Amino acid sequence: MGVIIDGCPSNIELNKKCIQDELDKRKPGQSSMTTERKESDMCEIVSGIFEGKTTGAPIAVLVKNSNMYSADYENLKDVFRPSHADASFFKKYGIRDHRGGGRSSGRETISRVMGGAVAQEILKQHNIKIIGFARAIGGETFENVDESFIEKNPLRMADESSFKRALDHVESVKAEGDSLGGIVEIRIKNPPAGLGAPVFDKLEADLAKACMSVGAVKGFEIGEGFSLSAKKGSEANDEFISNPGSDFLTRVRTKRNVNGGILGGISTGEDIWFRVAVKPTSSISKPQKTVNTKGEEVDLEIEGRHDPIIVPRVIPVLEAMTALVLVDHLMMNASISNFQFSNKKNE
Amino acid sequence: MGVIIDGCPSNIELNKKCIQDELDKRKPGQSSMTTERKESDMCEIVSGIFEGKTTGAPIAVLVKNSNMYSADYENLKDVFRPSHADASFFKKYGIRDHRGGGRSSGRETISRVMGGAVAQEILKQHNIKIIGFARAIGGETFENVDESFIEKNPLRMADESSFKRALDHVESVKAEGDSLGGIVEIRIKNPPAGLGAPVFDKLEADLAKACMSVGAVKGFEIGEGFSLSAKKGSEANDEFISNPGSDFLTRVRTKRNVNGGILGGISTGEDIWFRVAVKPTSSISKPQKTVNTKGEEVDLEIEGRHDPIIVPRVIPVLEAMTALVLVDHLMMNASISNFQFSNKKNE
Amino acid sequence: MGVIIDGCPSNIELNKKCIQDELDKRKPGQSSMTTERKESDMCEIVSGIFEGKTTGAPIAVLVKNSNMYSADYENLKDVFRPSHADASFFKKYGIRDHRGGGRSSGRETISRVMGGAVAQEILKQHNIKIIGFARAIGGETFENVDESFIEKNPLRMADESSFKRALDHVESVKAEGDSLGGIVEIRIKNPPAGLGAPVFDKLEADLAKACMSVGAVKGFEIGEGFSLSAKKGSEANDEFISNPGSDFLTRVRTKRNVNGGILGGISTGEDIWFRVAVKPTSSISKPQKTVNTKGEEVDLEIEGRHDPIIVPRVIPVLEAMTALVLVDHLMMNASISNFQFSNKKNE
Amino acid sequence: MGVIIDGCPSNIELNKKCIQDELDKRKPGQSSMTTERKESDMCEIVSGIFEGKTTGAPIAVLVKNSNMYSADYENLKDVFRPSHADASFFKKYGIRDHRGGGRSSGRETISRVMGGAVAQEILKQHNIKIIGFARAIGGETFENVDESFIEKNPLRMADESSFKRALDHVESVKAEGDSLGGIVEIRIKNPPAGLGAPVFDKLEADLAKACMSVGAVKGFEIGEGFSLSAKKGSEANDEFISNPGSDFLTRVRTKRNVNGGILGGISTGEDIWFRVAVKPTSSISKPQKTVNTKGEEVDLEIEGRHDPIIVPRVIPVLEAMTALVLVDHLMMNASISNFQFSNKKNE
Repeated sequence: MGVIIDGCPSNIELNKKCIQDELDKRKPGQSSMTTERKESDMCEIVSGIFEGKTTGAPIAVLVKNSNMYSADYENLKDVFRPSHADASFFKKYGIRDHRGGGRSSGRETISRVMGGAVAQEILKQHNIKIIGFARAIGGETFENVDESFIEKNPLRMADESSFKRALDHVESVKAEGDSLGGIVEIRIKNPPAGLGAPVFDKLEADLAKACMSVGAVKGFEIGEGFSLSAKKGSEANDEFISNPGSDFLTRVRTKRNVNGGILGGISTGEDIWFRVAVKPTSSISKPQKTVNTKGEEVDLEIEGRHDPIIVPRVIPVLEAMTALVLVDHLMMNASISNFQFSNKKNE
Repeated sequence: MGVIIDGCPSNIELNKKCIQDELDKRKPGQSSMTTERKESDMCEIVSGIFEGKTTGAPIAVLVKNSNMYSADYENLKDVFRPSHADASFFKKYGIRDHRGGGRSSGRETISRVMGGAVAQEILKQHNIKIIGFARAIGGETFENVDESFIEKNPLRMADESSFKRALDHVESVKAEGDSLGGIVEIRIKNPPAGLGAPVFDKLEADLAKACMSVGAVKGFEIGEGFSLSAKKGSEANDEFISNPGSDFLTRVRTKRNVNGGILGGISTGEDIWFRVAVKPTSSISKPQKTVNTKGEEVDLEIEGRHDPIIVPRVIPVLEAMTALVLVDHLMMNASISNFQFSNKKNE
Repeated sequence: MGVIIDGCPSNIELNKKCIQDELDKRKPGQSSMTTERKESDMCEIVSGIFEGKTTGAPIAVLVKNSNMYSADYENLKDVFRPSHADASFFKKYGIRDHRGGGRSSGRETISRVMGGAVAQEILKQHNIKIIGFARAIGGETFENVDESFIEKNPLRMADESSFKRALDHVESVKAEGDSLGGIVEIRIKNPPAGLGAPVFDKLEADLAKACMSVGAVKGFEIGEGFSLSAKKGSEANDEFISNPGSDFLTRVRTKRNVNGGILGGISTGEDIWFRVAVKPTSSISKPQKTVNTKGEEVDLEIEGRHDPIIVPRVIPVLEAMTALVLVDHLMMNASISNFQFSNKKNE
Repeated sequence: MGVIIDGCPSNIELNKKCIQDELDKRKPGQSSMTTERKESDMCEIVSGIFEGKTTGAPIAVLVKNSNMYSADYENLKDVFRPSHADASFFKKYGIRDHRGGGRSSGRETISRVMGGAVAQEILKQHNIKIIGFARAIGGETFENVDESFIEKNPLRMADESSFKRALDHVESVKAEGDSLGGIVEIRIKNPPAGLGAPVFDKLEADLAKACMSVGAVKGFEIGEGFSLSAKKGSEANDEFISNPGSDFLTRVRTKRNVNGGILGGISTGEDIWFRVAVKPTSSISKPQKTVNTKGEEVDLEIEGRHDPIIVPRVIPVLEAMTALVLVDHLMMNASISNFQFSNKKNE
């Protein structure tokens, strides 16, 4: 597996560790909550870095994967797994590569995480930080948010008081050979105002596409989202307030940030926040009914160990996608809005 | 206002009427539910059509607009309207064009509807149809769906039994000078299997971006979306069933279509369906607090008549965006997956 | 006719005059050398400018054209004109729109010139200037270059000593009902170093594409081009020399600039120069043989007045295309190479 | 080194051999004419193929390279080589990676050749073939064309009668430690009519960009190119003739094909042909003057063995780029022009 990151500015400090750290968050086998296949997922930067800094050339990062798939997947050779992509891929391409690890496999997210790690490193240098956590699991929404708790628990929850109960829920579902889904909340801390384009490439539109392109994601809402649609205008509208300070960009603020830090497709300067619906893991041990490649109805039991919940492992992927969208828009802004200034200085 | 539609195949029958019909659905002043400004919105095709057929050249469509804005908007010259894009635009561009009708105005959707009308005409020739309706208004979700009722009521609801109650709700909110939002459901009837790309350009990702790029849209969910994230895998998984018929593309089907007609980013051949959250109209008559361009806190009353709910007028815009995404993917498929066949025949 | 210029930075001073001036250079009827149809070509900016400055919104410019084509072109309705695009268009689109002014008409260059005028205005603010002139006409190459002479003669030559002879040549060919071609040289004065991408989007590659996309252009060479391919390496190589000055970007220079100001796809900081081959006007009064839409061989006489040479009118089009490529790369540079600096300052 | 080929249709037969064959044509050490470094250049397909056919997934091809560069290039660490990209890269990126093999190295063309090999395989299945040969070497143009001779001589000439003289010329220049350039002619046999877009993406414009993006290429001309610009219209115009046959696409032909098989940016159905100027190898053994990274003027001798002429090795690269452009336009045509037919059949 590998990823090629093109268009990265030169002279940015970058090392293997920042990529490996993000990979480790995505990796299976971190706890009993996630699959226990042994995937090494050790990355290596093979181009684009010289003496610790980006050169402007594409950055290629490789990950070696010692796992053998062929055996595990042999019994699924002729069967379409429910709620998996097998059948629609077959309909599209007219060919079936039954070995695991294809483009609908969770393993393709390794590339996303590696690209996102570089993007997050760039964002850090602009003092922008991305945080994701499990806002809901198996239908229960957690109200408290303590960001310091996120990396201390295997479910990546931010609500310590609910953790024990949620963990028990996951464990019992796992024991049944079943799975759970949940809702992820992503927060972008300290984004600049002015990111996003006003018509088709609104910032929330690009964020929605990026998140919806991750497997198992079924919904996206910016700010209060669906619940905002149930309110009256007088309740939903978020009044502007004046924040002391001489700079216009920071003086005009919104009072409650219900729109998630974006208005009219363009960031306001408030923290950006949105939520993403993740369906329960499709691979379950419980017996299921399905159809094989001959179109015959058959019974199916998927062997092996499965994540009872993939929410904790999807979070670093969604953080990565968010970072990639942000860097893209930061670069567009550097190019377009501030073009007249930046060029005079730098060319 | 105008739109230029590039890349349309040649020799497709197209006339002004199909575009005008869609425009009329979007137009204000259709009923007491929508703004009563008189906008003519009469379209004219100025290029790309010769003797009733597309020539392959870009299709340019113009709409004359007799409305004068300058007077209406003069009193808003120095004030940022809450939950509007004024402030974030100012932060981005450093310039303020206070006249209405800018790119964050609802009027930019005219272009989307005209482009979408052409796309829908192409889809019709592939026997694909797009239908949208109000699934929820002001927090109330309507359960019944009678598609034949949609164009018979000003709220574009599909549930006749709830219509009177919903209309009363909208009227009473209008009398208060307030507004409502709602949820739109879009259904794509008879889509081919195999549309969509497996990684970044998943079909649901492109649909999400297209819908989230429409003003006032705050959320998107494909199929059962957010509610799917609250279920167990064994409940959420949608088993494949075998449908009699000799063609594989139609034989393998899903039983309940909870995933909205897309698996792994690629259409399954089932009807595609998704929902979109629309916030309440931001322009309300009730007094609000805000900030002016000097950063001073001021009171604001927005004069004039406002839509108490924009859901009915957003529906044709969302249908248009959906049609554009579909045609785009149909063309990609014609290009890539079926390239080996189509070229041998047609070149 | 119109053009929409998207992505222009905000707050750039721009007025109608700079666009009209470029249009006037392209306009027919400037002298006996160019067609005498009366085309008004008066432009109007209809969006994107507010109080004399760009707003960041797309800039739409329209040109009214009072000329009627239908009559003039009626007799060409069923005939393919030699070396014109009629037949290949028909083969591609399967439809024939015989009215003049289509996308292969010289009139489409109006849009290019208008877009290029805005680009040249931006370049002026970076102290970059683009100059084009006729380096050869009808097979004769002119050696002297006096840039101040270019706008003083209808052939846009830079060699005053050869002008009278070239004019006589053109006049005599015109009297025969025939036409001439020539070679245009374009010079970019004071470009920054570092423009261009190292692999596929080399600066000379983008310039070549931009120029070759103009009708009647048949060749492109950067710097000494084809003649460089006939030299030995020791003659062709251009040694680096050291120019006094504290800044590295200006200190290292090339001695003879035979490579045209670009090495490895990236501008060196030297003036950029290249040459473009323009074929003789295809519309001539002399009788020709051709085929009609039924595939029958027929004799053809194209009535009306034709440019005996289009080189002088192609020059502003090539300048426009050059300017558009440069602004594109300046923006990419503002985005990518200087991203780390510009954002810190401007966001 | 590797290449990832995305967007390749599924179910196309493809194997390692067709890629390796093209690589072998580009490889150094084929004769005394080309560098004798030992580069293995053995390719391996690591994804996108299953049981001998493309799956629709990206095709990744890797090439192992056993050569060590670090030692060879150490002495060039601080020196800018004349007519190389070193200085302009340094000016752009502000960083210097002096190891060979960067993006301005000839080795980056390996990726182009591998991608082009896949494209050529697709073209073969449409009965389209691409042939390239040395039309001129060191200033001498060869008139005869015998395509069967091309792969029988190390200079890839098509004129057997001139071969011995040209070889002697190259050998003597090599003995001096100097180098030669030349002109490559590319012919596309049996292209379909209708490829190319009418305005900016004219087929010749895309071919020009593709060729000019290859290192050492300094010029491009379609058909008679620069020499066409020296003719009168009555000589240059190419009359249409009628070719017996019932199909319009093949019935209307041009008599002499001086425009190189493209009119108005769109292929006519005649063979496409164009020429490309290649400068002499910049790396020569003869002493040269240059500047080092401190801006000091120094003498330079580049050690090691150099190609006395790179024309024979550039030919497969130009063939590859040509194939990639053609497949791109074939796919666009499958998508756009023939969309109405192909979809009805294939979706």
